[in-house]
Order: sequence, then structure tokens, then C-alpha cells
Amino acid sequence: MEANNLEKSKKHMNLPDSVKIFDTTLRDGEQAPGVALTVDEKIQIAQKLDNLGVNTIEFGFPAVSVGERESARLINDLGLNANLCGLARVLKNDIDALLDCDLSYVHTFIGTSSLHRDFKLKMSKEEVIDKAVTAIEYAKDHGITVEFSAEDSTRTEEDYLIEVYKAAESAGADLINVPDTVGVLVPTTAKLLISKLKNELKVPISIHFHNDFGLAVANSLMGIEAGAEQAHVTVNGIGERGGNASLEELVVTLKIAYGIDLDIDTTQLFNLSEYVSRITGIKMPPTKPIVGENAFAHESGIHVHGVLENAATYEPIPPELVGHKRKIALGKHTGASALKAKLEEYDIELNQDQFDSVYHQVKGLGDKGKCITDADLKAIAVTVLGKAKEESIKLLGLSVMTGESVSATATVKLMINGKVKETSSIGVGPVDAALNAIQDLVKDTTNIDLEEYNIDAITGGTDALAEVFVITSDEDANKATGRSTREDVIMASVDAVLNSINKILMIKEAQ
Amino acid sequence: MEANNLEKSKKHMNLPDSVKIFDTTLRDGEQAPGVALTVDEKIQIAQKLDNLGVNTIEFGFPAVSVGERESARLINDLGLNANLCGLARVLKNDIDALLDCDLSYVHTFIGTSSLHRDFKLKMSKEEVIDKAVTAIEYAKDHGITVEFSAEDSTRTEEDYLIEVYKAAESAGADLINVPDTVGVLVPTTAKLLISKLKNELKVPISIHFHNDFGLAVANSLMGIEAGAEQAHVTVNGIGERGGNASLEELVVTLKIAYGIDLDIDTTQLFNLSEYVSRITGIKMPPTKPIVGENAFAHESGIHVHGVLENAATYEPIPPELVGHKRKIALGKHTGASALKAKLEEYDIELNQDQFDSVYHQVKGLGDKGKCITDADLKAIAVTVLGKAKEESIKLLGLSVMTGESVSATATVKLMINGKVKETSSIGVGPVDAALNAIQDLVKDTTNIDLEEYNIDAITGGTDALAEVFVITSDEDANKATGRSTREDVIMASVDAVLNSINKILMIKEAQ
Repeated sequence: MEANNLEKSKKHMNLPDSVKIFDTTLRDGEQAPGVALTVDEKIQIAQKLDNLGVNTIEFGFPAVSVGERESARLINDLGLNANLCGLARVLKNDIDALLDCDLSYVHTFIGTSSLHRDFKLKMSKEEVIDKAVTAIEYAKDHGITVEFSAEDSTRTEEDYLIEVYKAAESAGADLINVPDTVGVLVPTTAKLLISKLKNELKVPISIHFHNDFGLAVANSLMGIEAGAEQAHVTVNGIGERGGNASLEELVVTLKIAYGIDLDIDTTQLFNLSEYVSRITGIKMPPTKPIVGENAFAHESGIHVHGVLENAATYEPIPPELVGHKRKIALGKHTGASALKAKLEEYDIELNQDQFDSVYHQVKGLGDKGKCITDADLKAIAVTVLGKAKEESIKLLGLSVMTGESVSATATVKLMINGKVKETSSIGVGPVDAALNAIQDLVKDTTNIDLEEYNIDAITGGTDALAEVFVITSDEDANKATGRSTREDVIMASVDAVLNSINKILMIKEAQ
Repeated sequence: MEANNLEKSKKHMNLPDSVKIFDTTLRDGEQAPGVALTVDEKIQIAQKLDNLGVNTIEFGFPAVSVGERESARLINDLGLNANLCGLARVLKNDIDALLDCDLSYVHTFIGTSSLHRDFKLKMSKEEVIDKAVTAIEYAKDHGITVEFSAEDSTRTEEDYLIEVYKAAESAGADLINVPDTVGVLVPTTAKLLISKLKNELKVPISIHFHNDFGLAVANSLMGIEAGAEQAHVTVNGIGERGGNASLEELVVTLKIAYGIDLDIDTTQLFNLSEYVSRITGIKMPPTKPIVGENAFAHESGIHVHGVLENAATYEPIPPELVGHKRKIALGKHTGASALKAKLEEYDIELNQDQFDSVYHQVKGLGDKGKCITDADLKAIAVTVLGKAKEESIKLLGLSVMTGESVSATATVKLMINGKVKETSSIGVGPVDAALNAIQDLVKDTTNIDLEEYNIDAITGGTDALAEVFVITSDEDANKATGRSTREDVIMASVDAVLNSINKILMIKEAQ
């Protein structure tokens, strides 16, 4: 049997039949420094999490502010399938704030490690238990579901931790949650701890693991192997410091590696990740598992060759499963098979010499660290096929004015297929004005739409280079990229757009 | 005992005394789509990895290109302490390419899973073993160190995998490497597989785990618990798809959680991560464990309160250990303790009413998702203390021109402390010209330097909002931020700079 087959190990595990997903993107995720969601954004995310199929949504900490309580009421009004849970310290006031919003699920907590007792709470072991029990009983008297967390449980003396949890269980807690508050567990200790607690407790165990060592998902899997029936996660793993266990990694690993199906619509994962990135401003790197831009991208010759023969060769997860797409990237490591596949995709036939020339140019751009888009490849192929004319459009002159009292104004003079044309246009800013003038001048040749306009983040002085990347399209849905790097952001924008329009015209004429 | 204490579990492990770090940032890391390092960048990274103290550096794949062989020779000439290793298929030509560069360590591989044998290689089981043995013997005949990888080992039939590895061992391989080529292992299967191989083999076992489920570091830890003596890693975990095991996470977890010291100078980790991010363009999110911007940042009231009492409350790793810094962030979740600590830091004394007003404003900005810098806090405090005058500088007029034939030119009219002043200036672009004119106009009041200028990435149409963020400083090292969001990037830049200069003047006058 292959090593990736878990079946034979399962008999040594205490795996639950299913695992409940408790999402805390709106609470733990929102606590990430610099993140603040508006009420409307919280509602949007809650709706998307519910569509995805999570069991419980922790929306926030109602005692903290009026805004939090307003979110609670509005999300409650959506009538979601998921439970709606609020956080509360083991304080009557905190629980009242939650009851005020008509919530029926509380996640209540108190620090139990000596660090928390001595430095933060300044309470004895007995006082901590007493506080917890009082709060749990109070919440249960109001008929709501209670999940109790011993904050910093993983640095709490083990005997005392069991004592706290048993007291919480006796007081009526419906679930015992085990937070690894500062992410000190490793997989082995995670399994050991949850196994012990599982032996001592009757109520279901929930886990809430942080990612300071990068192990939150792995530790959660080990907790589940030991019998935990619920896991706390956040979209993209966002949260304080190194974040929390990431929803998409945990769900997909449980499904693919463990064969545990969770009633989660995994095909929504990619879009949800993108949405949360955009709203929170916490962008995932291309290397983020499952949802990163490169999660299903293949560039190196050896890998592309394998994937084209059989995708499973280098893909443990089918991209469609998570709503993502496979991408064959061209670059430095591109091999001949990838290039051939791409050319076939676009019905471009080349003889061996022509192929070698295109291959050489692609590798050359790749060696300089450039990413090569499909339009770039087409333009290279058209040139090699000798079908390319010289640039159809040339910039002869440009003047741009902007200021406080009138709209930004641009005057552009172009040579278009040998004819000189000139016009002026206004816009909301100088770049907009210049591009409006260009669109106006070329409209007799082709109707150009600007599909994407992107200034790469510039950090440095105002004389730093600005890199502009654009995608334009024509009425036949030909799309081409253009890019330019100059000190003047306006000039860079104009260059990039003309570069891209010239590519479209080149591809068009060759067709 | 606390759950984070591994000591009692160690007797059930087969932990090696030490673990060798084999860094493959320059090979696997560089294979990430879109990454292409120049020879000079490879040399810089190799030097930094050697300073850090890694045992082996895999620099690339010499058979692939002239450029790779040139890098090999130049890195070899550095005379590093680390071994320099090159990748090679089990082909005489590939090994010759490596010998040509005078390398003394080869990492040679062939696919062994049925997917690889049937779809990619089209070879029988016997042919694969034969190829591997021939190559290993050829390399050993030339007296070099041989590390042999059975590619896709984790999806290879277990009996056959052992057969391959035993043949490689008999042929003279110095290390057996176990690549989880598509990242299908989970911690439990990783430990099981390495334990089995450890029982069958005498030579040291090396592991090379991919991150498709986000488990590469966790799996590596489990492999090490089972007796693996070397781990392959990359800086920031960069690599194809979801990447590889991340150097910084593995090294720090081994040190802190396992007490295994590796002769790695961990204080260099933060700078190395930043360097590799910059050179490869693969930026880490703020939530990246160990090296992310937020890895040691605290914002929420509860956490800051704890950290100020005793940093260990919410910090499993001291930031200095990895060359990082603790950051108390102000924002939506800021509590009174954090704010008090910040105000004390700046010797700002407020009565209760004034404190409440500052606290209210900080929370208000935080609720809008704004990050609040120290300068912002000072400006708020100065205003609350009633020491703030009205803005010293006001923009009365601005006109900017740019084009193809002359330098960008700006004319700026300001009211400075009640006096109207106007001047023009040129620059490399319109923003530069406008800021040069402003600097010129205010120089009688204060000498302003622009420390940082940042246009946030803009994606959308050319009429999208541009967000400009600046930091300026004066001759007394007062620093202030300014920001503005407008459709016109030039107007946004001017606004942001004036906003920031006004803050400096406000703080100055209050002192």
C-alpha cells in the first residue's frame, strides 16, 4: 500500500464520524491587527460561510461595542442555517450582552494557565473555577448552548486543566473547547492532550488552535484523530500573530486524506478566500495551499510534462474541487511539452525552426524573471511566423495637465497606420484623461476597452519606478497585456496601453 | 505538566541528536512559477544561507542551462562552509554537468510511483531500479556524495519503495531522500512511513516534503520524530504549487518545542525572509508564522494587557530570537492598557476626560479599518490637549504638466502661516515635480524629507481610487504619516504630503 493511504492507520485512531466546522473569521480573524470589518462586510461574510455549509459562525464579542451588537442582530435576522455564536468572558454582563441580541450560543472563556492566573487575572485556581462555573450556570439558566474555553489550556497544569473542564461539564457546558492560545502545540502533543481529555470528559470536544509555529492545521488533524468533534477555523487562517487553523486547508485535507465528508461545498472555497482577502486586505501569497494563485500552477518542464499526461502526476487535489483552475505557466523552467501544448491550444502551427525560435524567446523572457502570458506567446509566435507588421500605432506627442480648478486634461498625438491624429480629452485624473484621448483616436481602427489597469505598489521616493500593467480587449474579445516601467506613472500608463493595443492589432492582422 | 511539554513524549520517539538543514530555496524555491533569479541574486542568497548556518545548499539543476552551470561555479568559488549540491536526473549527462562544475554533492532522482512509471517514464519497475543504480554507481565512481530520491515516494507501493531504496543503498548512496512530491502525507502517515524506512535502511534518511495540504512543516517534524536526520526546506516555504517546508518554521519549532539546537543563527531569519520576498516577488502575508509583519503584533485589548504584564502571556517565541520586533498596534480592538502604554512611551500626560477623548478617536479610526501610527496618536493627543493650531499649510492652487518633450512641471501655491507663496519646479514625473515645489516652498519653515512614498496597488479602471501613503520627517527627526485617497494620483500625493507636514508642524509647536 502507498504511504498516503490512511486506511490501515485508522483503526489506531479515535476518529469521529463527522467533524463540525466552527468558523471564527469574523471574531478571531477580525482581531488580526489592521483588520476592521464593517457591519455590512460581516453580514456578507456570514452569508457566504452559511452558503459554504459551516456549522457555527462566531460573529464577534457583543460586550465590546454597540457595533458588535448591531452586527449580531442583523446577522441573526438573516435566518442562517448555521448557529450564530458570540464570545463572552465568564462575566454576567458579557453574557447579558449576548442574550440582549437574542443569540442562543455562547463561547465563554477564562485563562487557566499560571501565566494568565498570576499576571493577567490575579486569581487563585479556585477563583478561576468558581467564575467559570457561575457563568456557565447563568448561561444555561437562560437556555442557550454553552461552549467553554480554558484560555491558554495548552500551558495549563494538566491535572488542573482536567479539574476545570470537569467542573465546566458538571455546570452544564455543552462543549468543551481546547484553545492553543499561543500555538505552542506540535502534532504529537496535540494528539496526546486531546486523547487524555477525551478519556476524562463526556461532552464533545472542540479545538481552537493557533498557528505561531505554522502547525495549526496539523495539530487540528491530530486533535480530530484523537476524537475532537469540532474544529475552530478562519478563512485563509487569518487571526492574531500567525493566525488560526485555515478553513480551506482543514476541510480539504479531511475530505481528501481522511475521507471525512463535511457537507461543505468545497467548490466555493476559492471565491470565499479571494473575497476575504479583498475585504480584510490580508493578501495570500501565490504559494498558499488550496487557494493560492500557484496552488495549481505548473511551470517546470518535468512537471508540465507529467501533468499533461495525467494531471494526478503532480496534483493531489483536482482544482475544480475547490473552485480553482489549473494553470500552465510559461517561464524560465518551461519545457518543450508545455510550450507545444500551449501552441496547440491556440491552433498555432510552427515548423521546428520556428518552434525553436519561440522556445528560445520564451526562455529568454523567463530568465529575466518575466511572467509570460498567453497574449505574449501569441505575439511572439506571430512575429516568428513573419506575419507581424511594424507597430501600427506610435506615440508622437503627449501633454497632460492637472490641477485644482479644472479636470485633468490630456492631448495625445498618435501615428496610426501612417496617419497622424491628435485629440484632447478630460478625465478624473491625468491617466484617465490620456487613456480617454487614446481610445478616441483609435476608435476608427478598433474599439478598445481597458479590462484591467494595475499600478504595482510603489514604495520608495517619488522618483521610484512605477510599473504599470494593463489588459485591453477589442470587439472580437482579443485580449492583450501591456506593461511599462518608468519614473513617470502617466507615461508608463500610456506606454503600457499602446503596447497592448499594438499586440491586439498584430494578432488581428495575422488572423 | 503542561501539554506543550514534549519531554515525556520523547522516549517514544526516535529523535536524532541533531538535524541537518538542506536548503533548496535556489532550486525548489526558484521553480515557483514566475520566479527567476539572476546569477548575482543566487550568489547573494547562497551567502546569506551560509551565514545562517545551513548544512547544504541545493543551488539548481546544472544540466538545465548554461546559466545554472555558471551559478554553480561562482557559488563554488565563494568557498562556503555549507555543502553545495546540484540536482540531476539518473542520467550520465546530468551527473557529468555537475562534475563539470566541480561539485561534490549530487541529489539524483527518478519517479517510482506507478503514475510516474506508467505515464511519465514509461518504464517497468526493474528498469527504474536499474537506472537509479547505474547513476548512483557512476556518481560514486567519481567520488562525490550521493543523495538519492525516489520521486513521488509517498504514492509508491510500499514494498517496491523499500526495494528501490535498498538497491540505492547497496549501490553506494550516502543518503536516502524521501520526497512527498505532491504533498499527500499527513502527520500520521509521515511518521509511519519514515519509521518503516528507518527500520529497513542503514544510511541516514533525508526528507523533502511539499505543502499542498499546508502540512509540510508538520510532516517534517513527524519524520524527524521517526528518525530522519536531514530535512529539505526553503526560505518562506516557497516552491511549486503550495510550496515546500519553510526553513524558519521548522528550525524555530525544533529549537523551541523540541529543544534541538541546529547551529543556525536564528536571529538572521527575519532579514533573510524579507530579502527572499523582495528578490522573488513572493510576498508573505502579515499572518506568516515567525517572520510575518504581525507575527509579534498585538492589538486586541485583552492580549495587549497580558503582553504588557508578561510578554510570554501571548508570545510563544521571543521576537528577538528570530530578529523580529514586538509591535503594539492601535486599532479597533485597542484597549485602554495599550493606549496608556503608548502615551506613557511618548511622555504624553492626559487627564481622564482627555484620555477618554483620545481613546474614543482611536477606536473610531479603528472601526473604519484604519491602522493608527504613533504619529497619528501624537497628533490626536496634541489636538485634545488644545495645543493644536489650525493647519499651518493650506493648498491654494496646483497645476501640473507632463508630456514627451520636456520634464514634468508643477506650479504650487500654498498659504503658509498666513502668507501666500508660489513656485514652480520640475521633476522626473508629475508627482516628483509637485513634491519638489512643496519642499521648496516650506523650506523656510522646516526642512522636510520624504522618507517613504507608497501608492497602494491599484487594480480596476484608470478611474479607480488611488491611495497614497507617505512618511515625512524634519531636521529634528519628527516623523509623521499622511494619507489621501482620490481618483487623481497626483492630487492624492500632494494631499498626503501636506497632511503629513501639517502633523509635523503641529507636533513641533506643541513641544
